[in-house]
Amino acid sequence: MTLDLDALHALVIPGPSKIVLCSLDGLGGLPRPETGKSELETARIPNLHALAARSACGLLRHVAPGITPGSGPGHLGLFGYDPLRYPVGRGVLEALGIDFDLRDGDVAARGNFCTVDTKGRITDRRAGRIPTEVCVRLCDRLREIRVEGAELLIEPVKEHRFVLVLRGSGLSGRVTETDPQATGVPPLPVAATAPEAARTAALVNRFVEAARPLLADAAPANMILLRGFDQRPEMPRFPEVFGLRAAAIAAYPMYRGLARLVGMEVLKTGGSFAEEVATLHEHWSSYDFFFLHYKDTDKAGEDGDFDAKVAALERWDALLPEILARSPDVLVVSGDHATPSILAGHGWQPVPALVASAYCGGDPVTRFTERDCAGGTLGLIPAHALMPVVMANALRFTKYGA
Amino acid sequence: MTLDLDALHALVIPGPSKIVLCSLDGLGGLPRPETGKSELETARIPNLHALAARSACGLLRHVAPGITPGSGPGHLGLFGYDPLRYPVGRGVLEALGIDFDLRDGDVAARGNFCTVDTKGRITDRRAGRIPTEVCVRLCDRLREIRVEGAELLIEPVKEHRFVLVLRGSGLSGRVTETDPQATGVPPLPVAATAPEAARTAALVNRFVEAARPLLADAAPANMILLRGFDQRPEMPRFPEVFGLRAAAIAAYPMYRGLARLVGMEVLKTGGSFAEEVATLHEHWSSYDFFFLHYKDTDKAGEDGDFDAKVAALERWDALLPEILARSPDVLVVSGDHATPSILAGHGWQPVPALVASAYCGGDPVTRFTERDCAGGTLGLIPAHALMPVVMANALRFTKYGA
Repeated sequence: MTLDLDALHALVIPGPSKIVLCSLDGLGGLPRPETGKSELETARIPNLHALAARSACGLLRHVAPGITPGSGPGHLGLFGYDPLRYPVGRGVLEALGIDFDLRDGDVAARGNFCTVDTKGRITDRRAGRIPTEVCVRLCDRLREIRVEGAELLIEPVKEHRFVLVLRGSGLSGRVTETDPQATGVPPLPVAATAPEAARTAALVNRFVEAARPLLADAAPANMILLRGFDQRPEMPRFPEVFGLRAAAIAAYPMYRGLARLVGMEVLKTGGSFAEEVATLHEHWSSYDFFFLHYKDTDKAGEDGDFDAKVAALERWDALLPEILARSPDVLVVSGDHATPSILAGHGWQPVPALVASAYCGGDPVTRFTERDCAGGTLGLIPAHALMPVVMANALRFTKYGA
Repeated sequence: MTLDLDALHALVIPGPSKIVLCSLDGLGGLPRPETGKSELETARIPNLHALAARSACGLLRHVAPGITPGSGPGHLGLFGYDPLRYPVGRGVLEALGIDFDLRDGDVAARGNFCTVDTKGRITDRRAGRIPTEVCVRLCDRLREIRVEGAELLIEPVKEHRFVLVLRGSGLSGRVTETDPQATGVPPLPVAATAPEAARTAALVNRFVEAARPLLADAAPANMILLRGFDQRPEMPRFPEVFGLRAAAIAAYPMYRGLARLVGMEVLKTGGSFAEEVATLHEHWSSYDFFFLHYKDTDKAGEDGDFDAKVAALERWDALLPEILARSPDVLVVSGDHATPSILAGHGWQPVPALVASAYCGGDPVTRFTERDCAGGTLGLIPAHALMPVVMANALRFTKYGA
């Protein structure tokens, strides 16, 4: 029960308002069994609670009930895109995650170095998680490979992981994976799952066969596995859909990549949140919309470190006044998914959200926690329903129907 | 905003967790005008309230706002199937309701004995609700009928109702009904609504014509009406979709039938809920998922007996500790639809639901009532969105998107 992006676009009217969307990555948490209190309930975050008290509060669900969102679907939801309607492939996300400048038509795949025995059967799908330096060196070797009909771009990621990008005309991501997701069997040849992908499948198979002899002496990383072939999805551009000059401020490449995917401008920034806030101030007059990403909350949650996540929330809270100092017309605080410390990973739980504006309305919530936001006037809404609420609060939407 | 069953299946990962889904049939109620309190608000159910206090709570809507679900759609929703996508015909439900072993390809119809006058016009569509013994005897007569091309199976249900099943190859349920839903007119001949059903229509008409002389002396049950022709719907099997060894424990045949329809194993059990709980204990180690059905709440509601429904809730609550003693990783309590006593029938009102697990999250709800659950973190969700939440809490789903 949401309007599609075309219908939303039809409602856009111009305005002078400024919007800041803060994504605290992995914001939502779960109570620590010893205290019964979640990270948000434990942290000393007076600025956030005070902001919640004058905001419309609620909970966001990024994909569907019970579904744990990855960072891709999580952020697309925040940007107003239904993640079920705009899926992003694994290879594309991997490329975005290393700031790779993926172009329209490129086919990206996630690569793993792996170990095979003398008969070519996989014995370790991750090549013993070789150090990143080894990965870098072996990627250099793979770059020697040439196949007719496409340019091959190979970039190391971390440990055994790398990205393969095929660039050229007439390529397609509709091919199967070489990773059999099992040991004791050889890698699979790639096959086209659509007629237009036959040539791409042949190119990939030629690349894989050329890699085999090049890596023969590189055990444990003596072979490769490829999966998640995909092209940049075609999606409407955020600045055009919402009529906003939109900028992204994110220290981590994955989030810059996701912002670039929807057409936001990515601003150069430093590695800390304080530097991100400084970047916001620096560019304040040039944009209508800022996406401001904070990674520490997710990182601590992924590590299963409850206290570190609490500390990350408190650090963010301490910088909130510097954002408030700009008096954005609409300030949004939420996240792309939950990362409960007790799960040490992403979670499916709905994520607290607040929208502060002069028009956000009376709301009973006075504390920014999972439990409190459940009773807010935003309700429990799909994440991609947030942007329309933001646009409305920015007085940038006209009414629907006369 | 839900994923289809294929997409959910793709997220399944194995795990050791145990899930118990308790369906309190017709759970939801309405306030009694004298007190302003619903059955759940009136009952002394301390165990349920305590469980709610440590659960994620919410409300389930089984079909759509304002739509009163039958038992079929109600339970299919609980099992994770969108009931609008997987309709089950009336005849099929009637057959399931008497534990009939309906096979793929069988066509089932609901039969009524009725009264016709000398000109063959219906004077009573229910034959004065003849006693069940008479129905049994007359079904024996109908069993004498043979038609070429299909086996005929006839089973009495209750009073004037029986089930007709046609078994054979090439049958189709796409035929019209003989019941004109009116008196003063004769039964209608059956017609095919799709070309492939022409032969089935002819077979049914031959059966009806053969029934007429056999019943001529049996007034008031001197004719039959047939409706709701249908075949078992093709639906994905629950154990495969969710990767769960799934067992159903239900004293009533209809619910065993619905569980069998989705491929659950149906365990032999006694007629009381205490016996059902004993069956749960007996088979605890052999399954990952148990569907535990409780009928008394619905029965009392259907009778319009508010106090009896309160008592049924209290009896269930008293046995809850025996389920909790097994420490299931995920415990779900909800129902297939509301049966408010003041309606003396099924209702369209959303039904309270709770999901208890180590990861269900902070939730403000501390009492298991319609009113309280409206403020819970599960939100107001389609019933078929519950299974994904259950799977997530059981740590049996991986994340969606990287």
